[in-house]
Amino acid sequence: MNTITVAGQAIPSMPWQAKPTQAQGPVWRYSENPVVPRNPAPGISRVFNSAVVPWEDGFIGVFRAEYVNGRPFLHLGYSADALQWKIDESPIPMVDGEGKDYPPLYAYDPRLVKIEDTYYIIWCTDFHGAALGLASTQDFKTFRRLENPFLPFNRNGVLFPRKHRGRFLLLSRPSDSGHTPFGDIFLSESPDLVYWGRHRHVMSKGGQGWWQTLKIGGGPAPIETSEGWLLIYHGVTQTCNGYVYSMGGAILDLDEPSRVLYRSQNFLLTPEMAYETQGFVDNVIFPCATLVDAPSGRIAIYYGAADTYVGLAFAQADELISYIKATSEVVGDDPDLGRP
Amino acid sequence: MNTITVAGQAIPSMPWQAKPTQAQGPVWRYSENPVVPRNPAPGISRVFNSAVVPWEDGFIGVFRAEYVNGRPFLHLGYSADALQWKIDESPIPMVDGEGKDYPPLYAYDPRLVKIEDTYYIIWCTDFHGAALGLASTQDFKTFRRLENPFLPFNRNGVLFPRKHRGRFLLLSRPSDSGHTPFGDIFLSESPDLVYWGRHRHVMSKGGQGWWQTLKIGGGPAPIETSEGWLLIYHGVTQTCNGYVYSMGGAILDLDEPSRVLYRSQNFLLTPEMAYETQGFVDNVIFPCATLVDAPSGRIAIYYGAADTYVGLAFAQADELISYIKATSEVVGDDPDLGRP
Amino acid sequence: MNTITVAGQAIPSMPWQAKPTQAQGPVWRYSENPVVPRNPAPGISRVFNSAVVPWEDGFIGVFRAEYVNGRPFLHLGYSADALQWKIDESPIPMVDGEGKDYPPLYAYDPRLVKIEDTYYIIWCTDFHGAALGLASTQDFKTFRRLENPFLPFNRNGVLFPRKHRGRFLLLSRPSDSGHTPFGDIFLSESPDLVYWGRHRHVMSKGGQGWWQTLKIGGGPAPIETSEGWLLIYHGVTQTCNGYVYSMGGAILDLDEPSRVLYRSQNFLLTPEMAYETQGFVDNVIFPCATLVDAPSGRIAIYYGAADTYVGLAFAQADELISYIKATSEVVGDDPDLGRP
Amino acid sequence: MNTITVAGQAIPSMPWQAKPTQAQGPVWRYSENPVVPRNPAPGISRVFNSAVVPWEDGFIGVFRAEYVNGRPFLHLGYSADALQWKIDESPIPMVDGEGKDYPPLYAYDPRLVKIEDTYYIIWCTDFHGAALGLASTQDFKTFRRLENPFLPFNRNGVLFPRKHRGRFLLLSRPSDSGHTPFGDIFLSESPDLVYWGRHRHVMSKGGQGWWQTLKIGGGPAPIETSEGWLLIYHGVTQTCNGYVYSMGGAILDLDEPSRVLYRSQNFLLTPEMAYETQGFVDNVIFPCATLVDAPSGRIAIYYGAADTYVGLAFAQADELISYIKATSEVVGDDPDLGRP
Amino acid sequence: MNTITVAGQAIPSMPWQAKPTQAQGPVWRYSENPVVPRNPAPGISRVFNSAVVPWEDGFIGVFRAEYVNGRPFLHLGYSADALQWKIDESPIPMVDGEGKDYPPLYAYDPRLVKIEDTYYIIWCTDFHGAALGLASTQDFKTFRRLENPFLPFNRNGVLFPRKHRGRFLLLSRPSDSGHTPFGDIFLSESPDLVYWGRHRHVMSKGGQGWWQTLKIGGGPAPIETSEGWLLIYHGVTQTCNGYVYSMGGAILDLDEPSRVLYRSQNFLLTPEMAYETQGFVDNVIFPCATLVDAPSGRIAIYYGAADTYVGLAFAQADELISYIKATSEVVGDDPDLGRP
Amino acid sequence: MNTITVAGQAIPSMPWQAKPTQAQGPVWRYSENPVVPRNPAPGISRVFNSAVVPWEDGFIGVFRAEYVNGRPFLHLGYSADALQWKIDESPIPMVDGEGKDYPPLYAYDPRLVKIEDTYYIIWCTDFHGAALGLASTQDFKTFRRLENPFLPFNRNGVLFPRKHRGRFLLLSRPSDSGHTPFGDIFLSESPDLVYWGRHRHVMSKGGQGWWQTLKIGGGPAPIETSEGWLLIYHGVTQTCNGYVYSMGGAILDLDEPSRVLYRSQNFLLTPEMAYETQGFVDNVIFPCATLVDAPSGRIAIYYGAADTYVGLAFAQADELISYIKATSEVVGDDPDLGRP
Repeated sequence: MNTITVAGQAIPSMPWQAKPTQAQGPVWRYSENPVVPRNPAPGISRVFNSAVVPWEDGFIGVFRAEYVNGRPFLHLGYSADALQWKIDESPIPMVDGEGKDYPPLYAYDPRLVKIEDTYYIIWCTDFHGAALGLASTQDFKTFRRLENPFLPFNRNGVLFPRKHRGRFLLLSRPSDSGHTPFGDIFLSESPDLVYWGRHRHVMSKGGQGWWQTLKIGGGPAPIETSEGWLLIYHGVTQTCNGYVYSMGGAILDLDEPSRVLYRSQNFLLTPEMAYETQGFVDNVIFPCATLVDAPSGRIAIYYGAADTYVGLAFAQADELISYIKATSEVVGDDPDLGRP
Repeated sequence: MNTITVAGQAIPSMPWQAKPTQAQGPVWRYSENPVVPRNPAPGISRVFNSAVVPWEDGFIGVFRAEYVNGRPFLHLGYSADALQWKIDESPIPMVDGEGKDYPPLYAYDPRLVKIEDTYYIIWCTDFHGAALGLASTQDFKTFRRLENPFLPFNRNGVLFPRKHRGRFLLLSRPSDSGHTPFGDIFLSESPDLVYWGRHRHVMSKGGQGWWQTLKIGGGPAPIETSEGWLLIYHGVTQTCNGYVYSMGGAILDLDEPSRVLYRSQNFLLTPEMAYETQGFVDNVIFPCATLVDAPSGRIAIYYGAADTYVGLAFAQADELISYIKATSEVVGDDPDLGRP
Repeated sequence: MNTITVAGQAIPSMPWQAKPTQAQGPVWRYSENPVVPRNPAPGISRVFNSAVVPWEDGFIGVFRAEYVNGRPFLHLGYSADALQWKIDESPIPMVDGEGKDYPPLYAYDPRLVKIEDTYYIIWCTDFHGAALGLASTQDFKTFRRLENPFLPFNRNGVLFPRKHRGRFLLLSRPSDSGHTPFGDIFLSESPDLVYWGRHRHVMSKGGQGWWQTLKIGGGPAPIETSEGWLLIYHGVTQTCNGYVYSMGGAILDLDEPSRVLYRSQNFLLTPEMAYETQGFVDNVIFPCATLVDAPSGRIAIYYGAADTYVGLAFAQADELISYIKATSEVVGDDPDLGRP
Repeated sequence: MNTITVAGQAIPSMPWQAKPTQAQGPVWRYSENPVVPRNPAPGISRVFNSAVVPWEDGFIGVFRAEYVNGRPFLHLGYSADALQWKIDESPIPMVDGEGKDYPPLYAYDPRLVKIEDTYYIIWCTDFHGAALGLASTQDFKTFRRLENPFLPFNRNGVLFPRKHRGRFLLLSRPSDSGHTPFGDIFLSESPDLVYWGRHRHVMSKGGQGWWQTLKIGGGPAPIETSEGWLLIYHGVTQTCNGYVYSMGGAILDLDEPSRVLYRSQNFLLTPEMAYETQGFVDNVIFPCATLVDAPSGRIAIYYGAADTYVGLAFAQADELISYIKATSEVVGDDPDLGRP
Repeated sequence: MNTITVAGQAIPSMPWQAKPTQAQGPVWRYSENPVVPRNPAPGISRVFNSAVVPWEDGFIGVFRAEYVNGRPFLHLGYSADALQWKIDESPIPMVDGEGKDYPPLYAYDPRLVKIEDTYYIIWCTDFHGAALGLASTQDFKTFRRLENPFLPFNRNGVLFPRKHRGRFLLLSRPSDSGHTPFGDIFLSESPDLVYWGRHRHVMSKGGQGWWQTLKIGGGPAPIETSEGWLLIYHGVTQTCNGYVYSMGGAILDLDEPSRVLYRSQNFLLTPEMAYETQGFVDNVIFPCATLVDAPSGRIAIYYGAADTYVGLAFAQADELISYIKATSEVVGDDPDLGRP
Repeated sequence: MNTITVAGQAIPSMPWQAKPTQAQGPVWRYSENPVVPRNPAPGISRVFNSAVVPWEDGFIGVFRAEYVNGRPFLHLGYSADALQWKIDESPIPMVDGEGKDYPPLYAYDPRLVKIEDTYYIIWCTDFHGAALGLASTQDFKTFRRLENPFLPFNRNGVLFPRKHRGRFLLLSRPSDSGHTPFGDIFLSESPDLVYWGRHRHVMSKGGQGWWQTLKIGGGPAPIETSEGWLLIYHGVTQTCNGYVYSMGGAILDLDEPSRVLYRSQNFLLTPEMAYETQGFVDNVIFPCATLVDAPSGRIAIYYGAADTYVGLAFAQADELISYIKATSEVVGDDPDLGRP
């Protein structure tokens, strides 16, 4: 198991807690959760479903900030230790290709990924319905937003952290115009981030895992490992009292990422703590970002909790991957190329 | 800002707590909430969505009491300090115009208002569907119930505390026969409380405030101020796990109360505390009554919490009104007269 | 049976056809139906659900004219024989109390009734939802529209043809904001047409008659007879392929019109002819108006057919009333006063 | 009241706590609830809706164990005191009549009853939809599963603890294929557990008790008493935020168990504690089993809490029966034989 | 193909028309359809979904007669040629085991089958929801109705025309409480028609045939042939304008009738004629009965058309069976024994 | 009006009928409709929603052929006069880029357009939901299908007949996974047909035209004229008995085709004839293709009727465009560039 390796950088100030002895499964919670509580800044009621990356000596993040009018926008946040966060009081400014203001009407569920020397934010925005927004920055000061790369209705866009055969890759979850009661994960490629095509189906809801019977969606950017792309995602089931969001894990083929190699039929984390089961939307664990310290294989997973808080969990890459392989189940046409 | 004045009486034993330093926004919770807990009297499971007024040396209230069979009725309650309440074990007796018993099949969400020398209770009752019930008393012993003043389906009836151009005014929210997924506030007038007409549209759900995208409804009786009628109301949004009820505020024109002058796009209070997020119906803040001490401008707001408890919050009239003006947003035809 | 008498005027040019020998039941169709076909005037695609009265030497009517943009408005129509109709190319102009233009945004399903020396049109209009519109005329040139007498959501408003105890009476069907899947008939009274109250429940959907299991609604103005108010109405049932509208009949108490004396459990007419089963909305018979020749007891019933055509049917008052009595069934609290 | 007697055995190590002085109603909670917490065994996330019986010197139970893949199976559990439970790590093995493996695809909500010298488990299983599974054992080692005794869709199967007129009796709740929004309790009889017929309707949802307006379903096996069969069941109501499950009680006729003699219009227990209002499915109390010490009349009621925990409550048979009689309400055709 | 033989009797006056030259497929319509039109008898509005058998010198049938109150009952009808039918004006009288009147509240979609010397009617009746009714007669004068053999919700009960291994066999379609949007065919067995068990799944909706994607249900009694049980059934698909019912065909194993040997992926007949596409429920072909002349292999299929008429179609057994085999498609677990 | 010119070729054998004198509006039906009836070829039950182009001396078309198993595939058809069509008995064969078979699982609603020297078919196919399929041919013998250019859920893809600024343009209607109850028209561009981006919103449902309140979708390929791109499309409204599809017309800006210059608020054609109001899906007019004779400005519009037939209608380009301009209404942000 020690031969599993993770691509990427070292993070000297990586947040970490050792696995508690009573923990079951390969993912465990940070004992001081939530890391971002309610009302963290003036006019901001809730922060959740947010993304972070190492930046300069510390960390920077793009946070879903739900205002006291209930509308979500993206705010930057800063931290020295990735645990204590200071959230900007103003939303991230965006400009179009010509430098003109190009702010979204609203913005939520951001992912943040570095490809080569640029950081990309991809989020859910309004384009006559829920659709993907895409912006880039190199300095976290100027954010250039592209004209809409996807038609509605789409959510949970996740860029891969490097190009593949010279093309950008993106996971997304085609949706509908409401609280979508279905959803699979698809892969798309692009030579330039502007035009997208060669869409393929990656992974279906369902299988033995009842926690993912309703829909699934990508989470943090896939993590490149010697075993394949490690994908942490969310799965949703529906009870008579609403949706329950849990965290799952899968391994995609490095060469053909629309092939699922392994996929745990078990959730990695399901709402159990009060900050997960009770909030604006009860029973939600929604992973959006990871920090990965490549040398040690340590992974810190940031997740939205109950659409109200930011939670943090930890995993060891080799243990997590081994668990996914050991509990793997083929669902639908997971192993296929994803062509119709 | 100090020039804002509030009409009405002084309440010597007004309940009050100073605003905590960490409070955001113009409304803050009573630290000892809930003021009415579960199972407050034999056979009564939950008390919430209730109304209070000053009475004699203390206070009297009309409480929505949900029995151990789950059915709601109206009970009187008494308090010296408006904080500790003793709830009657029997429902309020009602008679018709000829003095015969005229009890409602069930009764919920009462409002209570004094106009001239009479107290009026308006509540939601059954008239082949949810409709408004209306009764009056001068001594809280005899309650005279009028024949049904409105057709179904209607809820959230709120009388103004004085006549306007010689006519009674009432806000209401036309509904449907279930857990209504829409709803605006309308104004009606009547020469005699028996016949009603000249209906006008006052205020729409929606706008920038996502906490009020699904429906809105009147709360306590409007408070007359030098800036207009101060209306505290509830707004509802829908998540994948159900409705969330928050508290909002608006100012209506004194001369033409179907015109909205200002309306905060922000909620004044949204479910955050365990007694608001967790109960028979999670995530409900439902304001029904205020006590207003006119000289000081202090306002105590009583609200139902999670359809399980009675909560209490405080505001200073001038601060609240200034906040509403500062965060105001025009929605739909808010400023219009409300004619079709 | 001959002792049954009908109140009202003689109509010399009353349209009429004798009952065919093979006819079952007390109502039979005009052999030349439909009396108004598709595309009867430039820009008008369909005319249906319309009302007629005797006027001067012939007849005048208020017609629901659905434009080539699909939107309905009210047009006058003229006829010498009540069979051939000439439809105005412009909608009925309406003014408010001060003589200013006050046109409805759209208008449909009109009823037309003469009370004393004035003709009243009541129709379904927009008031932040479907609601009742009300206008009066004495010359069919000037139509004065009142400010909205009822809150939404309401349809099928039907005025009685004379005052009762000095007050106007109106039947209506409280609805919801869509293709309402429920609905009963209620009675309201008013001293002045402006303010309305003392609402009572008249008649419920349901009973043995499966053709009226979903909802019911008033049709033409009630006809005063020696046996009571003869009410022709529509009842709706729901199949797996949509709603089916049939025609029904009831007798209301003359003194207390919220009491149902008799009510046929059978439909009087159900969609059978191609012009009733096939059109913009298949399977609709929607009665809106009658002509009654009092001396002979002849009744001509105008009905919308398939939301596309105007159809005509005939009945003899005594035979119809006897049939209703002979096939009567008490449903719910039909015989009650209609107080909650 | 002391003359009420309960049939059955003595249970020497019966779990018990005296009724707290502040308790209202005839059922009270165990102070150390929940008796089974989250994650009670490796790979098992939640245990709830489970059944127990005395066995040898202690107790044995059949537990609904929800795996970390979210799928439920039945596991045995053992206890000396009926309070501390050790849950098997493997599911109950089942064989068909020929001894071949015959495992269910999934299994939930078991009931467990001893008839003569055999223990029967009846649970909800998959038979092209939710249906009843039935297995028997005499030693809790070999479990013989019968071919499917009922068509889908059916849930909440409950066997009576003895034959009646030589035939087995079973309560069940015909359902549909989802989160069924309706449901009554029916009775069926069988000479051999293989063929079932003479179905009768026992008890309807509804009545004055709003906690049971949506559906009802049987709970533990009926308890034979001198007053009739004591039936503890669940009733469900629907709020805008989902279903709420409460516990109710009824008395069925000993000779004709499809007749309801008494039925409390009040719930016996409704979700109030955090472990009942907050979990995988908020607001659920779902009784599945009782232990009854016949000589003392003590009853211990095991119930699922929030689809997450096992809770325990207590009652005294005579007090409970007297309460049901005192608060009884006839609903629908409760007293009838239940033939159509 | 000539070696295919059909079990059963000769029908000397078998209705028949030769196959038109332009006909596609193995089933063709009677040129004089419908054989029962609208309003065939006083008080009866529509007759459809009915069953016929040879009787004495001619034919007798059990007809679904929909009254002018819209409610369905079963009436007998008589015919010399099976084409012209005289419908009784009174419903079939039914008694219970003790000879007391035992009439159904309503009754629809009868099937009629002779087993040994007795005729059995099985229909859809009310038992707190749609359920199967069962009655027997030997003389078509006395009809003995059994106590309810199945729980709700169930429809389309079809008895096999002879016992199998000494037991009665019945197909049915478990349903829900409305216009059921799903449904498969199941098999049940009984030693005595009173108790039923050993339920098995026979046939699923779906497969390549889009005309049967929503639900399927048995039609006439299965016809015993040398190739297996010939089952004519209905399949339903859903368009944006409602359900469409078509006729399909399958062959079940003679020894194990829960096994499907062949099943045409094509409809045998789909609504095309005006009497099938336009009526009370548009687009319905609902086969309920066949007459089979064993020596010639001629089959006359009676079907309800548009829930308004009785239609008739013809087929030649060998051609029909060959067609089903030639166009057969395995769907789901069609070939399995039908155990879970 | 004569100055309006149409781009494109002359069609010598253009099908045509002069406008009837009684016709209202600028589009009239072919008197011999439908041009393709039911059961036009063995195994094909219905042909509708199909596209045609001039080819060699006559015409060729791609037809939606619904098989006797109810499943749709694309078939070629040939005609000398564009009125009498011979439909191929086999579906169009498709290969992928490497020449391997690449048939769709099903295929419906094709559009067919010639760009430069190649013909493109775009249709609705399965890609884990309804999505767009795209294939090209130059000889109508070899059809090369591209890997899926769009994510689900999408329908009504319509290519422009020439490149714009060097890029392909396509209209489509993002949908959901069922009988989508909403839908607007969007524009996408592509350098190579493989990758698509710069999506823009073109046209919203709604406005004054109630025939298009539910959704709209592109129809035939836009026709280039001197006034702009002439777009014939479908609009849908919803009655209580289902969807009604009508034909509408708009003019898009030649330079910026996401801008709507004019848009008739009136339907151009709505279901009125029996072959449009009665069929597999009642009340559908679904335009898919035009033939345009540029010199004369004659347009022949092919449309699906009732999901059962192919109908044909005619228009004169200048008259049609003038009508659209004269009855134009701005809806939503029609005139905008279509950026969010």
